[in-house]
Amino acid sequence: MTDTPTHFRCEIADGIATLRLDRPDRKNPLTFDSYAELRDWFRALPYRDDVKAVVFGSNGGNFCSGGDVHDIIGPLTKMSMKELLAFTRMTGDLVKAMINCQTPVIAAADGVCVGAGAIIAMASDLRVATPETKTAFLFTKVGLAGCDMGACAMLPRIIGQGRASELLYTGRSMSAEVGEAWGFWNRVVARDDLEATAQDMAARIAAGPNFGHMMTKTMLNQEWSMSLEQAIEAEAQAQAICMQTEDFTRAYNAFVAKEKPVFEGD
Amino acid sequence: MTDTPTHFRCEIADGIATLRLDRPDRKNPLTFDSYAELRDWFRALPYRDDVKAVVFGSNGGNFCSGGDVHDIIGPLTKMSMKELLAFTRMTGDLVKAMINCQTPVIAAADGVCVGAGAIIAMASDLRVATPETKTAFLFTKVGLAGCDMGACAMLPRIIGQGRASELLYTGRSMSAEVGEAWGFWNRVVARDDLEATAQDMAARIAAGPNFGHMMTKTMLNQEWSMSLEQAIEAEAQAQAICMQTEDFTRAYNAFVAKEKPVFEGD
Amino acid sequence: MTDTPTHFRCEIADGIATLRLDRPDRKNPLTFDSYAELRDWFRALPYRDDVKAVVFGSNGGNFCSGGDVHDIIGPLTKMSMKELLAFTRMTGDLVKAMINCQTPVIAAADGVCVGAGAIIAMASDLRVATPETKTAFLFTKVGLAGCDMGACAMLPRIIGQGRASELLYTGRSMSAEVGEAWGFWNRVVARDDLEATAQDMAARIAAGPNFGHMMTKTMLNQEWSMSLEQAIEAEAQAQAICMQTEDFTRAYNAFVAKEKPVFEGD
Repeated sequence: MTDTPTHFRCEIADGIATLRLDRPDRKNPLTFDSYAELRDWFRALPYRDDVKAVVFGSNGGNFCSGGDVHDIIGPLTKMSMKELLAFTRMTGDLVKAMINCQTPVIAAADGVCVGAGAIIAMASDLRVATPETKTAFLFTKVGLAGCDMGACAMLPRIIGQGRASELLYTGRSMSAEVGEAWGFWNRVVARDDLEATAQDMAARIAAGPNFGHMMTKTMLNQEWSMSLEQAIEAEAQAQAICMQTEDFTRAYNAFVAKEKPVFEGD
Repeated sequence: MTDTPTHFRCEIADGIATLRLDRPDRKNPLTFDSYAELRDWFRALPYRDDVKAVVFGSNGGNFCSGGDVHDIIGPLTKMSMKELLAFTRMTGDLVKAMINCQTPVIAAADGVCVGAGAIIAMASDLRVATPETKTAFLFTKVGLAGCDMGACAMLPRIIGQGRASELLYTGRSMSAEVGEAWGFWNRVVARDDLEATAQDMAARIAAGPNFGHMMTKTMLNQEWSMSLEQAIEAEAQAQAICMQTEDFTRAYNAFVAKEKPVFEGD
Repeated sequence: MTDTPTHFRCEIADGIATLRLDRPDRKNPLTFDSYAELRDWFRALPYRDDVKAVVFGSNGGNFCSGGDVHDIIGPLTKMSMKELLAFTRMTGDLVKAMINCQTPVIAAADGVCVGAGAIIAMASDLRVATPETKTAFLFTKVGLAGCDMGACAMLPRIIGQGRASELLYTGRSMSAEVGEAWGFWNRVVARDDLEATAQDMAARIAAGPNFGHMMTKTMLNQEWSMSLEQAIEAEAQAQAICMQTEDFTRAYNAFVAKEKPVFEGD
């Protein structure tokens, strides 16, 4: 894992890694290379301790325009099934890497947020937008299905089955206002406040308890398809583990001392 | 499969099949016969290529008043368990046939939309109503449980577990305005605009990509109870299949030529 | 099962059991004893016929402040893993007992509704609040994870995955107004109307059909992680069972006689 990736930008400060795609002149499309490097970056995240929250930010007024038509879609139209499956699995692996990275991810999306870009926002844990953010799961516009990188599973759980169906069948754009009303965006803030808002949310997450946050993220994923009874037992085990962390004792001691707890992540 | 069913109306034009129950004087109740014929009609749909979208419309200002009290409920009170299970499985089979018909279904519901009528709307992919539409899952009103034809599984995923619980326990009516705010209705339009709106939505769907839409519908159903990781792998496979359709190449070629793609469904 | 529990209040009248925690001076925290006694009370509920609905009410202007810091959190910081798991399983068992009690539960939450208190509201079937109700899943505030007593499974299905994630990661308070807009609260009523509203909802539930309500509750839980097709078959069986109750015939006979049905629960 490198802190100086080649195909996207990455700044790490105060426990927060801020990523951005870096082709603002083209509204930050994804390429084969940036997909793979992002996947590898998220896959390495569980093994480092200095990143406690991730902000996936915008660049030049846009979040991400999805798979580049020339760099990706053109070549895909000429591939064999073996090559196509390798590609769709790579894109799916980025989502798998994000949900398994053990670190909360906050999408801070301005402007264009479409295709695989909309998926990256969807696969994040928290989502902030601006009034200018336009989100579209536009796979049907390029002749494909709405089932891309987990969209048919995840989007219905965020905004409801009926609304997700409409977005996935039509590929139409969802305004920021509608996206907030539907629960896709946790907050919509003015363009000038986007960075500060996302960094502030990340700072609160990074302040911990980080072991707890890791377990929250793990279980939100893990319980996706469990029965209710299985989920309750799984949480009994997960929370018992958390109760043996020092951060639990730190919180109790701080409460007794009428102080604010300072978490250390163990 | 017949285009001239006996127990409901069916018109097919421009790739859109428009169905309506046809007892407007009684607000279009379902009977044993119309249940069975609808089930068979939807079951046959995957084997024909001329229907690319279905509109389940209203008739005489109402959508459907559910199972007829005299024709269905009366006889049910006298049946053996074997006969009862045959009936409840037949009604469930209508829902199964709808979700497996490989074609998007748009419910266009005016006026009364209750009981099994509310279920038909719920089991559709997209839903349009008018301000006059009143929707009720009124099974408890006739002494039964809210678990009818998949309601305890599907309704919570559309409007949330808490709101679904209330509707299913109380059987109370949900106004069109509330249903839109809760995400049950994709749109609410004036009564005079209902037909045109539904036909317009269907026409956009029918314009394709139809192979893609078929796959979207399949996967929204298929991923219902998968784990997140299973869903992502399933979508990698499904989308790779879509990438070998000509419609994908057609979309790319149209993009390069700065034209609007014309999809052909293969 | 006792009607005079030691660690909470219980009044039974007209088929409605009204429970309240009873330390209003401390905003009704839970203790080891009240957890266990509540679990046992809900576990015994399927075996008695005189309780047809449960109201979990407030006391002294508050619902529940969660696990008591001195009585519970202090001791937990000193426990072995074996003891911790016994505790988290006991708290999970309260939720399991509530969802398996075969009787609809209505939370009537005023004021403070936090931690395990928020969980009790979440695990109820219907939820009423007042403008003063403040709800927080504040487990991260005490150094733990958001996955407590089923929260990572249940809360996303009630208010959506994105909003649930925010509440569980941040532990922040959800106002009553926001909670109603998100579908957590079925109704928000003035403080003076809370009791009457909850009792009225309970009375409507208690009026039956109680066998049907029992089956609705069972299936909402049972279908949680079924496939769509499994859920539809499960409902065909469940509803066929309900069709052999006398209450189904009573409803039909009342309809024919143009009377209001009187349900008797069998």
